[in-house]
Amino acid sequence: MTFTEQLARAELAHDSMLCVGLDPDPARFPAPWRGDPARIFDFCSAIVDATKDLVIAFKPQIAYFAAHRAEAQLERLIAHIHDQAPDVPVILDAKRGDIGSTAEQYAAEVFERYRADAVTLSPFMGFDSIAPYLAYEGKGAILLCRTSNEGGADLQGQRLADGELLFERVARLASSAWNRGGQLGLVVGATFPAEIERVRELAPTLPLLIPGIGAQGGDAAATVRAGWRHDGTRTTAPIIVSSSRAVLYASAGADFAAAARTAALAACGQLNAARG
Amino acid sequence: MTFTEQLARAELAHDSMLCVGLDPDPARFPAPWRGDPARIFDFCSAIVDATKDLVIAFKPQIAYFAAHRAEAQLERLIAHIHDQAPDVPVILDAKRGDIGSTAEQYAAEVFERYRADAVTLSPFMGFDSIAPYLAYEGKGAILLCRTSNEGGADLQGQRLADGELLFERVARLASSAWNRGGQLGLVVGATFPAEIERVRELAPTLPLLIPGIGAQGGDAAATVRAGWRHDGTRTTAPIIVSSSRAVLYASAGADFAAAARTAALAACGQLNAARG
Repeated sequence: MTFTEQLARAELAHDSMLCVGLDPDPARFPAPWRGDPARIFDFCSAIVDATKDLVIAFKPQIAYFAAHRAEAQLERLIAHIHDQAPDVPVILDAKRGDIGSTAEQYAAEVFERYRADAVTLSPFMGFDSIAPYLAYEGKGAILLCRTSNEGGADLQGQRLADGELLFERVARLASSAWNRGGQLGLVVGATFPAEIERVRELAPTLPLLIPGIGAQGGDAAATVRAGWRHDGTRTTAPIIVSSSRAVLYASAGADFAAAARTAALAACGQLNAARG
Repeated sequence: MTFTEQLARAELAHDSMLCVGLDPDPARFPAPWRGDPARIFDFCSAIVDATKDLVIAFKPQIAYFAAHRAEAQLERLIAHIHDQAPDVPVILDAKRGDIGSTAEQYAAEVFERYRADAVTLSPFMGFDSIAPYLAYEGKGAILLCRTSNEGGADLQGQRLADGELLFERVARLASSAWNRGGQLGLVVGATFPAEIERVRELAPTLPLLIPGIGAQGGDAAATVRAGWRHDGTRTTAPIIVSSSRAVLYASAGADFAAAARTAALAACGQLNAARG
């Protein structure tokens, strides 16, 4: 099954557009585990088990593992998701971007070592830095387009000589010339609904990964209205709305997993209500 | 000592602008080690020992380690360089680019876990994705500007509405508003000497990391003329010219380290001759 098919099935089966971002910060773990990087797997797998029937995808952020020498725990976590939630695709948030021969190594890391279903990439080095990931048939590659951070405007928001903004150029390339195998998606921050709408116009069918609701302040309802499209029987333009901290750290106590489930249920309900 | 000071001293002490890129590919190791990822440290440390008096820097490319679960070998390799070649700075080629809270994790990985002296970064997400690295006083952050691959033109070579090309904008920002602590450098591919010259004009004193000579076809002499500046007593605009495959795989036999030294000596001589 391809990443796109996995997304469609998980959305339907779980009636959800919510993606739980797995950004484990040991300093925020509940008391017995607090500050202990050896508990990253235990913490994340408890979150997975508590929310796996509520999500369209899980998105581990590799930096949080790499900073703590926790690569083996990341491997174990992704294997755990495939085992316990085989219908939920895993997006490895790694934002790689390098020339072809190096990209081949990163692609092997993502798809062979970690066995992720999709990866986030930076388009800054152009198409030949993306192509090696597309050689893995059916796997997804989600390109940074318009990010939710303040500095996102520094380059992505710049106007090109032909009138297009840089992120619009990325959206247009990703939905046409670059999308040969139908494997591409785009990252667009939830903090800019008008820009999600513009990206949706330029890339009418691509999956959009939308971080920034919850702790980062994005508006769930505006996000859904701007990005999600449905033709009456099925979603024609999927969105993957990611929340990390608001779910992971909903409680700092022993009830963190139950609290994460409550927070995920609320976020999922909010998103679904916005479909109208 | 800051990264910039380390560079200046290594350039003078070794009379060199050459950086050896450590991109270990087990399939190209000499016969007894061929195909064995457990030999990555052995292979790379032999290259380091054979070339350490000829270089301005070493540049391990993290993808080649990550694809083979060789993070522990990378830690050991960088410790080995600091121990055996304490005067040679280590640039971790990782091309990270993510929002602030995640960038903090990547910065901890690079500077605390791996103890690199500098890191390569993508500027696509803007200044707040760079700032967390600059919080490590004296450490270097080298931003992608104009890369040597074919797709480098897809975005970096686009003209902005005000007439600047995107990579010129990056160069200008990196040499002004973004360079608060004097820690920034730029990556410019050796395959485009005219663009190195333009970047040098916009960023007259920033260290330029220039990959692409050797196997990638860049012209060493044109590179030096375009980027290196000297006022008669000292280098005012350092360049770090990186060669990987042409040095690492100069011989596929048991003499690989000696052959790497010969190749590094030749590259170093070629670069120095071009100073005129």
